[in-house]
Amino acid sequence: MASAKPASGEDSLIARYFRPLATDPGAFRLDDDAAALKPDGDDIVVTVDAIVEGVHFLPDDPPDTVARKALRVNLSDLAAKGAKPAGFVLALALRSTDEAWLKPFAAGLGEDAMQLGCPLLGGDTVSTPGPLMVSVTAFGRVPPGRMVHRSGAKAGERVMVTGTIGDAALGLAILRGGKIHAATDNAARELLVGRYRVPQPRLAMAEIVREYASASMDVSDGLAGDLTKLCGVSGISAVIDLERVPLSGAAADLVSRGIVGMEALLAGGDDYEILCTVAEDRVEPFAQAARRAGVSVGSIGTVVAGSGAPKFVDKAGRELALERLSYSHF
Amino acid sequence: MASAKPASGEDSLIARYFRPLATDPGAFRLDDDAAALKPDGDDIVVTVDAIVEGVHFLPDDPPDTVARKALRVNLSDLAAKGAKPAGFVLALALRSTDEAWLKPFAAGLGEDAMQLGCPLLGGDTVSTPGPLMVSVTAFGRVPPGRMVHRSGAKAGERVMVTGTIGDAALGLAILRGGKIHAATDNAARELLVGRYRVPQPRLAMAEIVREYASASMDVSDGLAGDLTKLCGVSGISAVIDLERVPLSGAAADLVSRGIVGMEALLAGGDDYEILCTVAEDRVEPFAQAARRAGVSVGSIGTVVAGSGAPKFVDKAGRELALERLSYSHF
Repeated sequence: MASAKPASGEDSLIARYFRPLATDPGAFRLDDDAAALKPDGDDIVVTVDAIVEGVHFLPDDPPDTVARKALRVNLSDLAAKGAKPAGFVLALALRSTDEAWLKPFAAGLGEDAMQLGCPLLGGDTVSTPGPLMVSVTAFGRVPPGRMVHRSGAKAGERVMVTGTIGDAALGLAILRGGKIHAATDNAARELLVGRYRVPQPRLAMAEIVREYASASMDVSDGLAGDLTKLCGVSGISAVIDLERVPLSGAAADLVSRGIVGMEALLAGGDDYEILCTVAEDRVEPFAQAARRAGVSVGSIGTVVAGSGAPKFVDKAGRELALERLSYSHF
Repeated sequence: MASAKPASGEDSLIARYFRPLATDPGAFRLDDDAAALKPDGDDIVVTVDAIVEGVHFLPDDPPDTVARKALRVNLSDLAAKGAKPAGFVLALALRSTDEAWLKPFAAGLGEDAMQLGCPLLGGDTVSTPGPLMVSVTAFGRVPPGRMVHRSGAKAGERVMVTGTIGDAALGLAILRGGKIHAATDNAARELLVGRYRVPQPRLAMAEIVREYASASMDVSDGLAGDLTKLCGVSGISAVIDLERVPLSGAAADLVSRGIVGMEALLAGGDDYEILCTVAEDRVEPFAQAARRAGVSVGSIGTVVAGSGAPKFVDKAGRELALERLSYSHF
């Protein structure tokens, strides 16, 4: 991003909407070709996630929620890796410079950047004839060598997950209309759609994950598929108690009425919760630390030796058959 | 990017095409949610540039050149800032997983990453119903506080530029057919189209720019517009000798035959050369150091006090009227 005198359309757009967000000294007021991150002895953790109109968000989603989601899905990765946010850069592909869209987009982005402690460092704004796309690369800091990996889960450990699972998938289903929309009241709809549009990255968990978890990732593509990935990289498997997978009241209600099945919630994606494994004797202090940080955690199953896909078992001991594990783009 | 067992389409795509490129230990074989950059006391310089099908590259451009361009336009920024490449992350939006496109794309990216010393650290692959988009965030290292800025140019300094200007704009014009295609032979076409498709980032100049330049940026949107930006941020103006703007033989031939005017070359964009200012008494050692590094540099004008747009003056002292200064997306 760059300013200019006389300003081109792109430059005046940046000056108007994005410069006010670039409060970090390393952003150089977006007046330069690049930003600078100062070393402080920590490792810099880097994550990138792009969201595409019609794929990750809907054309009529409020622009401020599109901005928040683009940033927050990246902050969710940082939290799961045990990292504290340090800043982000943005690549934004727009069809036009529509002020009615850009103004709330930038306002939402700025609010989140401030509140979540992750300043805008730089970016690139380009035109596209196609769907809007927002690509964020976010940076976090961890003490040297302390990034928490997907690998490292060991047999005997407990599988832990923050928050509740499946709400965002239900929110998306509500926005698309159909039976889940018909089966929910306004309060449930608002909660579930909110979970789809504006994830809550578990930043307060970063240090706790670093302290207690052997392996960790965020749940973005669906609990079943993401746990399968964690198991694959760790070289282990897992058995999950379906009953213990934490659900919101709204989701539990839909399941108990037979309107949705657990498999849809487990494979739904967009949860942005933290999935991690913790040694049995550390589960209690881990859960206490999480509670003190204001985050609920559930102990949903056990890591077991083996290389098969994790099993999801109901209270009668029956294994749930999952036709698909998670969202895949292709 | 993440691996999984069983692999989803997205995961197998990543394992197949991109894992072989992720040779840096901080990439964790693309098995994780994030990468890690180790601190070494240097500042981390961060730049992001996205390229969109139909805007920055053409639908029938060879896939390997699309990959190379996406990486190289970012490395050009790093070189202009005086930074040495340290790695990059990639956000790739694809309509489908077409092997005939992805295989050469990944091969080109891998070759460039290796040859230009900038390893793939991570990425995100998403589906899009629209045009392909490749967004690269690249990292470089500079000694603390030594990133070279757009600001800092002082009256009396010389305006310097590497390589030749306007070739890529001519290459694009040739690909679009019309009078420039008709007016060039095969050798000229190949050279000019090559300059459009595969920029040559001036990595060998990074240390030299750091040593000698007061202000620096890369020429990506057109020399006229980019110099205007540098002047604006530095709070100065400039007078450029049109005759001294370095042109390739092919470009000079088209100008001398009256087929293109200088203004098209100055506003064309996609040059990916370095534009910088150097104190008068340091121009000769700067040019010598560049020559030793295998890069030609031209001294094209003088920084002057003032805040107006830079002037482009011919040998008769007439100022060239520029209708547009550079490419702008909006």
